[in-house]
Amino acid sequence: MTSAVARDGQSGGGAATSRSLTARRIAELAGGELRGEGDVEVTGVAPIERAVAGTVTFLGVAKYAPSLATSGASVVLVTPALADTEGPVAARVVVANPQEALLSLLPHLYVPAPRRPGIDPTVRFGRGAQVGREVEIGPYVVIGDEAVIGDRARIGASVVIGAGVTVGEDVQLFPHVTLYPGTSLGARVIIHAGARIGSDGFGYVFARGAHQKIPHVGRCVIESDVEIGANTTIDRGSIDDTVVGAGTKIDNLVQVAHNVRIGRLCLVMSQVGISGSARIGDGAIIAGQAGIQGHHTIGAGARIGGQAGVLGDVPAGETWSGYPARPHRESLRSSAALFKLSGMIKRLEKLLGDDA
Amino acid sequence: MTSAVARDGQSGGGAATSRSLTARRIAELAGGELRGEGDVEVTGVAPIERAVAGTVTFLGVAKYAPSLATSGASVVLVTPALADTEGPVAARVVVANPQEALLSLLPHLYVPAPRRPGIDPTVRFGRGAQVGREVEIGPYVVIGDEAVIGDRARIGASVVIGAGVTVGEDVQLFPHVTLYPGTSLGARVIIHAGARIGSDGFGYVFARGAHQKIPHVGRCVIESDVEIGANTTIDRGSIDDTVVGAGTKIDNLVQVAHNVRIGRLCLVMSQVGISGSARIGDGAIIAGQAGIQGHHTIGAGARIGGQAGVLGDVPAGETWSGYPARPHRESLRSSAALFKLSGMIKRLEKLLGDDA
Amino acid sequence: MTSAVARDGQSGGGAATSRSLTARRIAELAGGELRGEGDVEVTGVAPIERAVAGTVTFLGVAKYAPSLATSGASVVLVTPALADTEGPVAARVVVANPQEALLSLLPHLYVPAPRRPGIDPTVRFGRGAQVGREVEIGPYVVIGDEAVIGDRARIGASVVIGAGVTVGEDVQLFPHVTLYPGTSLGARVIIHAGARIGSDGFGYVFARGAHQKIPHVGRCVIESDVEIGANTTIDRGSIDDTVVGAGTKIDNLVQVAHNVRIGRLCLVMSQVGISGSARIGDGAIIAGQAGIQGHHTIGAGARIGGQAGVLGDVPAGETWSGYPARPHRESLRSSAALFKLSGMIKRLEKLLGDDA
Repeated sequence: MTSAVARDGQSGGGAATSRSLTARRIAELAGGELRGEGDVEVTGVAPIERAVAGTVTFLGVAKYAPSLATSGASVVLVTPALADTEGPVAARVVVANPQEALLSLLPHLYVPAPRRPGIDPTVRFGRGAQVGREVEIGPYVVIGDEAVIGDRARIGASVVIGAGVTVGEDVQLFPHVTLYPGTSLGARVIIHAGARIGSDGFGYVFARGAHQKIPHVGRCVIESDVEIGANTTIDRGSIDDTVVGAGTKIDNLVQVAHNVRIGRLCLVMSQVGISGSARIGDGAIIAGQAGIQGHHTIGAGARIGGQAGVLGDVPAGETWSGYPARPHRESLRSSAALFKLSGMIKRLEKLLGDDA
Repeated sequence: MTSAVARDGQSGGGAATSRSLTARRIAELAGGELRGEGDVEVTGVAPIERAVAGTVTFLGVAKYAPSLATSGASVVLVTPALADTEGPVAARVVVANPQEALLSLLPHLYVPAPRRPGIDPTVRFGRGAQVGREVEIGPYVVIGDEAVIGDRARIGASVVIGAGVTVGEDVQLFPHVTLYPGTSLGARVIIHAGARIGSDGFGYVFARGAHQKIPHVGRCVIESDVEIGANTTIDRGSIDDTVVGAGTKIDNLVQVAHNVRIGRLCLVMSQVGISGSARIGDGAIIAGQAGIQGHHTIGAGARIGGQAGVLGDVPAGETWSGYPARPHRESLRSSAALFKLSGMIKRLEKLLGDDA
Repeated sequence: MTSAVARDGQSGGGAATSRSLTARRIAELAGGELRGEGDVEVTGVAPIERAVAGTVTFLGVAKYAPSLATSGASVVLVTPALADTEGPVAARVVVANPQEALLSLLPHLYVPAPRRPGIDPTVRFGRGAQVGREVEIGPYVVIGDEAVIGDRARIGASVVIGAGVTVGEDVQLFPHVTLYPGTSLGARVIIHAGARIGSDGFGYVFARGAHQKIPHVGRCVIESDVEIGANTTIDRGSIDDTVVGAGTKIDNLVQVAHNVRIGRLCLVMSQVGISGSARIGDGAIIAGQAGIQGHHTIGAGARIGGQAGVLGDVPAGETWSGYPARPHRESLRSSAALFKLSGMIKRLEKLLGDDA
């Protein structure tokens, strides 16, 4: 094993390093009550069954209480009800919601890799491209003509940004992202590795014996504070734009077709497919692998169950599931009825004289 | 914001620029009847609710007629039946099919980015690779030994082309495409960003306590005029080839497994999965998120509904849907019956004496 | 067509070349009985309907026996029961399992591209990165600070490896793979093009009017002998690690969410989605497009049907299918009952007085 010569090596996603906290400091940060040794130190977090010395864990539900007896954790965040659970931890911090308290510690324990502003010498700029201040652009990035990169943007290795694209301030693009021409990203957008934004939609007219491609001249507009998962694809609009509203979060491997409009603060989970020209209202939540047929509207605050097949409009605030999707209680009733049916179908056939 | 120095910057997907058309010219191009000011100019298209001055829109169905009153469009393409709809547009062009007419205007309004033949100095060629005339190859492209690139091919940034691959004339590869060794692309094929063509299929034999990998020695043949969406994956064949027939269009995030044969002029929508050795006949249409089990045949011209799970052969020309997939009318009847069942199950149980 | 200047051009996935075998040598290798000309030579394999002179094919089931009459194959591997099937092949090799015998010939017929150890001059190394012996690293690869690359690893073009990542011995990474910081790969891991390993999980807490991102400080651990398909995404853990056990094989376009633990020797087929904190036991098989809800456990050796929606725990060794997933026999019974129901629902309604 030989050590390679260190060059500048931006890899487009730095590793976090950890620092330590005492149990006393944890109690202060979590707003909890300290029991035990205030001076014991931790440098990381861990789940109760796999925690080792030097970590802080949490215990929020009785189901996991027996694990405390064998946990190696030095500190446990624990509810008042479970505060006396037996276990060899050096310190306990009693708080109403241990899991949330643990999450609040993370920024204090794990320090993100320091920013390294700078543009790698291999970055290729098109004609008239503009770049803001304190940006960080990794090796082998290609930026098209007239593209605009906002202040403090971080762009990982091998990202390709098309002509005329706008990238807002404090945007983070992980490696291998492709932004097609006509894409616009607001501020603080995060896009994970391999996502494709602004690709042509799937639109053809059958004529002269072949599927003729419909030109796509709409844009793809990603508003501020959106996060987009790895390998997700969002097509540009055909005539209209495709829009993802501010604060919406999209998971991995999601498909958003042309002309779709997703509102603000939505959650779209992995492998969901949203067909052309569908409208998703503010705050809607769409669970994994669900499919939304084209041209329908999901109302604000609606929830769509995992693997649901939505073939019509869903009213605001309602929860729908199943295929074809119906209000969740109806879907549950249908599933239960079907399950019972399989036990009575023979007798029903007999009753109706079908027992041939 | 400082302006970056312009280099040559091919980004593998240029932006379109627009020019203007008068209402009179639009009427000529659409073969329609002009009413109103023939000299008014437009430089783009827009949907009726979001159209602004300087755009042309269309009105084809009565549902959207009220939007014309508040539309900012300068010109509207409109059906004879709706030609007198009230609204402040400067000119109307009356045609039988306004939406198709609008699509026919696009090549006149939006001019694709000019081609810039040339091979970026960073392109890496393997031994014996051959390149045609007037090709355009972007930065950081890697081309394997003995690969052949046809005339006028356009290859976006960071594309990787394996050894021995054949790329036909006028092919367009968007950034980050991977073509594994043994891939063959016909003429005019378009492949969107991040698609993976010719990867090893998922094939193992369990022996000696482990899943032993089956070597994949078949090829992946993509015939002419095929378009493949972003992040789609098409595996090479194990012994036989995987083939996608001429003129077939495949959407984003589709999986095509080893040895699959897709016919000509098919449409395969987003997130569909086609398992190993399945056969898809000419002109078949497979809607989003459907899954086709391995070794089955979908007949020519068949249609498969969204999210359908096809576990057997589907005859030519038929429409199937649901899980397990059945002829569409049967699936609809089953869904309707199930919905009714949930309202009568209690009484059925009582009838059969199950009300314990 | 002009020949490009050959440079060193590693494309991260060399093409195989073939050599020849005589029928006599095939019989030896397959442990079968030779009938016919022992000296006839083949240079490849092919399916029976498309085999040409100079290839070896196989015939294992009676259904395909008629194809032998028109097959151009020079040699056929055939079962004892079908050994006398009519056909113009020059030689027959009689074996119990012709398909397995054919697979065993592949390493003798197809020789993988020779390894070309070497590090392309364009490879970028971060500070303190370490590289083993006889590695092969293609053009435009970026390796982060403190990353460690094991002996004989092969890394395709444009791969991006984050800071602190560990890559084991004999690992093969195809082009465009992204390994986020905090990823660890065991020995002999194979990762196909465009897979994203160690991306942030989909975790937010709603506070102060927005979805606040939960930091992800867990790692993503891929144990030895795992193979991961093209464009698959595996998220890192939030607090705990995400782990894929030794010898497990994952197909294309699969989603594995944060904190998931997949056991050893599992098979996970294309487009499966495994939600956060799910546990998959050793040897489990999950068929295409199935979804596993978060926090549930699939027992060792269990089998999950294609498109199944698993909403609870599945006991070890059982086969479940359908939505919501149930034991496979129950699902089949429900499907059959539903199909019958649609034919009797009208009479049932009448019976219950619902025929309004």
